Parts: sequence; C-alpha cells; structure tokens
Amino acid sequence: MRILGIDPGVATVGFGVIDSEGGRQRMVQYGAITTPAGMPLAARLVQIGDDLGQLIRQFQPDEMSVEELFFSKNITTGIAVAHGRGVLLYTAEKMHLPVYEYTPMQIKQAVVGYGLAEKRQVMDMTRRLLKLKAVPRPDDAADALAIAICHARSATSLLRRKDPDVKETV
Amino acid sequence: MRILGIDPGVATVGFGVIDSEGGRQRMVQYGAITTPAGMPLAARLVQIGDDLGQLIRQFQPDEMSVEELFFSKNITTGIAVAHGRGVLLYTAEKMHLPVYEYTPMQIKQAVVGYGLAEKRQVMDMTRRLLKLKAVPRPDDAADALAIAICHARSATSLLRRKDPDVKETV
Repeated sequence: MRILGIDPGVATVGFGVIDSEGGRQRMVQYGAITTPAGMPLAARLVQIGDDLGQLIRQFQPDEMSVEELFFSKNITTGIAVAHGRGVLLYTAEKMHLPVYEYTPMQIKQAVVGYGLAEKRQVMDMTRRLLKLKAVPRPDDAADALAIAICHARSATSLLRRKDPDVKETV
Repeated sequence: MRILGIDPGVATVGFGVIDSEGGRQRMVQYGAITTPAGMPLAARLVQIGDDLGQLIRQFQPDEMSVEELFFSKNITTGIAVAHGRGVLLYTAEKMHLPVYEYTPMQIKQAVVGYGLAEKRQVMDMTRRLLKLKAVPRPDDAADALAIAICHARSATSLLRRKDPDVKETV
C-alpha cells in the first residue's frame, strides 16, 4: 500500500510518500509545497491544490493521511492553515483518494510508542524506521513522513482490516 | 457590475447575487449551499466547491465579495469555517473570479453607515436597499447580500476606480 502523508499549511505543506508492506515501511519521496508570502491567499490556495494534484498523479497513492488541527497557540495562523487544509482535503476527495486524519498524539503513539513523545524523538524514529541517513528537511517533510507512518501502522491493525468500508475520516 | 456575495461556512454557505449600476443595487438571487452534518468533511468541501462553481457559471458575476473570519468565540467552529472558506477562495480563483474581502465592521459601515451597527439593522437596511418585502432567509443569505452590497458601495469609490489593476484581496 502506498501512503501520502501530509502536514497541512499555506506557506509550507510537507509531504511524504511511503510504501508499506508486511509491517515495514519504505520511503519513496518527500518534500514540501511552498507558496510565496506576498501572493494573495486565493492564489496560494490554487497553487497548493494544483501541486497536491500533481503529486497524486505522479505517485498514485492508495490513501492519504493528514494531521488534525489543534490550536492553543496562534488562532490567526490556525485559520490560515485551515484554509490550506480545506483545499488539501477537497483536492484528495475530488481525485477519489481516501483521506484519514490523526491527532498529534496518535502520530506520536504510532511512531514512537508514546503519545507524549517530543518532536525530536518522532523525527529520529521516523528516520530509523525508514532507514534514512539523516532526518529529512524541511521539518514539514519529516512530519509528513511520520503522519504517513502513523497511517501505515494504524491501517495494518486487525480493526481496520475487518471492515474496509468503514469511513474513518472526520 | 454583477457581484456575488458569500457568507462562508461548512454546514451553510450563504450567497447573494446583486447587480450594481450608478450607485444602486438590485437583487438577482439569493440562497444557501448546505451540506449534511453526517457527511465526512472532505465530501462536504467538494459539495461546497462544486455548488459555488455552479453558481458562478449560472450567474456569471464580475467579482466576488467574502467576509473575513474573526474568532473570539468558538475556535473549533472557526477552524471548520476556514476549511470551507479555503475551498470557496480556491474555487473562485480557479475560475478567474476576482475576490475581495471585508471585515464585519466594513460591511456594517458600508450598509448601515455605522461600523458597530447591530445585525438586525444590517438586515433591515439590506432589505430596504434591495427593495425587498421581507428580510431574506436564511440569515446566511441575508448576510451574503449585505457582503455584496458592501463591495458594490466600496467598488464605486473613486479610489477603486482609479486603478483597476490594484489587487485588493488578502
């Protein structure tokens, strides 16, 4: 199964593509979609949607995994990220790509085995699981790979296997 | 000039189409795009994008006017609305429809002449300006008409007329 992990945003959208077979994950590609700060929001959103569409056509993932949004810090940033996330979900759905969402705690639990793990631990474990020499850059790409791994590990559980029709998104 | 006013959301997106000539506005159509609560978010976003695209093709507006988001109340609702708003901006931009944004205070100022006007006053003035017998329902549609009127009144100012290339969105 090929999984596209997405770390949502407007300025930077991290992406990570992995293949998952028999409980093991292999890195296929990672990177980031970036949009210039001076560009009007609507134009940035179109660039994000177009670039995601391009990634989906190129890598043909079976499923997409996206981090859920939580905001205790900056509401203004959160609102902007949610605009981008809306376009990411819209684009995946338009292209009939099933979308799964995970909380930061679920991602840490799945990757490190501990829901309160630190960001550095998640990144290092992501590097190890994918047998990479260094932690991927930018951070958004490393986060996206972790989000993909989280889905790989959740999707192989018996619970999910039992009923493939269960819609687990939102 | 034909203006499409949009009151963003996910469950309900209000829309109002008006024609504006010589400082007067005429109502063309109003209503709401609604999506069922039980539907996954990604599917709701696609329905919102598709329905807006349909409205743009049907009414051929020259410009779109959208309310800006402010959240002092419910952050969770705000995040959901921002997802929808992202798809609305994305769809307009994709269809080469110029988008303008206004704060709630700008809308009240333009419609009632007083930035701290109450919602009821905005609705009643919207009804009067468009020569309607009753305030449009649902509220989201009435709000969308007010947002369209706000743009009509702002767009006719000398400042805007001077340089049509000025990008006033976000």
